Amino acid sequence: MSNAKLGVEADQVRTDAELSARVALSVVVEPMDTKLAPVIRELGAARAWAAISSNAGGHFDRCQPRVQALDLEQVLWNTHQAGARLLFAGLPGWPPGLDDLEFAPFTLWARGAMADVDWMRSVAVVGSRAATSYGLHVAGEFGYDLASSGYLVVSGAAFGIDAAAHRGALAAEVPTIAILAGGVDRPYPLAHSQLLDQIRATGLVLSEAPPGASPRRERFLARNRLIAAVTAGTVVVEAGLRSGALSSAGHAERLGRVLAAVPGPVTSAASAGTNAWIRDGRAVLVSSAAQCVELVAPIGEGLLAPERDELTLVYDDLAEVPRRVFESLPKLRATTVDRLAVIAGVSGQEVMAALGSLELTGRVERSAGGWRRRPQDAPG
Amino acid sequence: MSNAKLGVEADQVRTDAELSARVALSVVVEPMDTKLAPVIRELGAARAWAAISSNAGGHFDRCQPRVQALDLEQVLWNTHQAGARLLFAGLPGWPPGLDDLEFAPFTLWARGAMADVDWMRSVAVVGSRAATSYGLHVAGEFGYDLASSGYLVVSGAAFGIDAAAHRGALAAEVPTIAILAGGVDRPYPLAHSQLLDQIRATGLVLSEAPPGASPRRERFLARNRLIAAVTAGTVVVEAGLRSGALSSAGHAERLGRVLAAVPGPVTSAASAGTNAWIRDGRAVLVSSAAQCVELVAPIGEGLLAPERDELTLVYDDLAEVPRRVFESLPKLRATTVDRLAVIAGVSGQEVMAALGSLELTGRVERSAGGWRRRPQDAPG
Repeated sequence: MSNAKLGVEADQVRTDAELSARVALSVVVEPMDTKLAPVIRELGAARAWAAISSNAGGHFDRCQPRVQALDLEQVLWNTHQAGARLLFAGLPGWPPGLDDLEFAPFTLWARGAMADVDWMRSVAVVGSRAATSYGLHVAGEFGYDLASSGYLVVSGAAFGIDAAAHRGALAAEVPTIAILAGGVDRPYPLAHSQLLDQIRATGLVLSEAPPGASPRRERFLARNRLIAAVTAGTVVVEAGLRSGALSSAGHAERLGRVLAAVPGPVTSAASAGTNAWIRDGRAVLVSSAAQCVELVAPIGEGLLAPERDELTLVYDDLAEVPRRVFESLPKLRATTVDRLAVIAGVSGQEVMAALGSLELTGRVERSAGGWRRRPQDAPG
Repeated sequence: MSNAKLGVEADQVRTDAELSARVALSVVVEPMDTKLAPVIRELGAARAWAAISSNAGGHFDRCQPRVQALDLEQVLWNTHQAGARLLFAGLPGWPPGLDDLEFAPFTLWARGAMADVDWMRSVAVVGSRAATSYGLHVAGEFGYDLASSGYLVVSGAAFGIDAAAHRGALAAEVPTIAILAGGVDRPYPLAHSQLLDQIRATGLVLSEAPPGASPRRERFLARNRLIAAVTAGTVVVEAGLRSGALSSAGHAERLGRVLAAVPGPVTSAASAGTNAWIRDGRAVLVSSAAQCVELVAPIGEGLLAPERDELTLVYDDLAEVPRRVFESLPKLRATTVDRLAVIAGVSGQEVMAALGSLELTGRVERSAGGWRRRPQDAPG
């Protein structure tokens, strides 16, 4: 299998000090290591790796256990065995949004059939693991509708909202992308092995952790920044006040990405976080995938969300006096012009004129007892 | 029963041309008659009534049927019979917020035990007749909690949200006020006769329509402006896109009153209107009565809504390295310092220091196989 399109061949990596340093750093340095990241950014990967691996000046003690355990050949072999390819900043296949991150990943592992990704037309759909049936339903609908509208659904393959969003996209027979906290060969959660297989069949599974890496809490938090960064916008479907999904939302906010949230019952703890973010003006309330598209669509290309369903009432197109006369007609019985004048508070002449126009448009009719509504116009 | 406190005696009305003109106008002119209201505002009630009742210049043809049917003595007798009293702008008992209206009522009929009303501390709780069990639950909670917090709950006594809000306030044994579209002696809906009796027992029932007047659609719309005007703020609990409750909301908005809405499931048509108003920034999202109070409370007196329930996770107070070490410990098994250094990506020395502080705070312990989490800290 050729990886030329999305990244570089393993052979190339071995001959390129910069790229192989990035892979080594991916294994040795935690993604959001606040001490090391600035050093690496300053020096560049190749020089930083030289310093770290030689523990220059004794400044990199913390890295030595991993440096000594590192076997780069083995990492590349594992990558090959997993059917994964490497993505690097500046080379094709790299999600451009990652460059906006303060702590950009050193490299990405990609596994799956999808070659070209239009990241401009992508939406992160995220939310709680502990989702309610409401949240699962909405996530599935959003996944399906976004995918059907030509938008790529990106999520984390977790239990709850994530999985429902991926499944919605798959139900629309559209590729979807999962970004994992552990290695791309480590299905997590294990119960989603089959879901991840399905995602890979047409889409992609991405991770900044090397093959074999196990997911840990800090890596989930680090992973969330990737979900926010690669996409044009993030929609949080359900999140409690302390949900990890809000960390994705926070990254989207800091990165200046579109941030949307689905409201939910105020009685539901699973919507307390989304409702709070809407209330605070941090997230835009969205009720449908179409409203998400409206927010993230490149300018000029935005499909407008369908007009709201405004029911037309029978007297909506009537002028004030005819409406008052019509409203003054009893629901079932007939009545006289004089009586209508008193009830409607208009003159007898105005009643006559109004009844004339109402009769012409089929809303009222004459009967033995006077004027009455035509049956089809009587409210139920 | 003396009405001196909230209005004027019927005897006074008869001797005061201005006040009796206002009563006459209440009977003859529809509250929001766009043709007549400006004339009446211009002339004042007494001169306007003289012109209208004499059909000066033939300009008031539309009023003549009602002018001829008017029996002011009878209206005042009906008022007395209903145990109602009259309220007039400029006299005690008049809700000051009504003066902000473009079409202020000419007079109000009041029926009930409540004498002094602190309109500054009042909230309109409104919503659809076709409410869901969610909306009814929330309206009841808001009614109860607002009333318990010293806020007056004002609504329209309609089916659905209105009734649930009133009942919530009554359950807190706090007076509540209903504003009706028909006369204060015409319980509407009829099924709420008992509810209205309960409201009157400690609170008030108000209307700008004279006793005996039947509620009609236009009067409901007119009534909604009163609910918005008398209160410091309006909260819409549930409203479809075409709900009459949004007319109250629109009035609150135009009057510059606080406007809040309760979000709901995007799958519920009964929340489509509230969600849309929140989305459009027209209403502030509120999840609790405390959040309403925060919005409407006079400056300086605002109770802050309780801090959000932020659960503290076990490692929240840990610094970066100890947190990484703690997270690297397996959930159940014990492990070695060397292994932890590799997993956490820190030096052996840092692992030792971290384990020392984690041991002191009771998070980890030594065992035969090395270090492990103390059982109480193991996630479930």
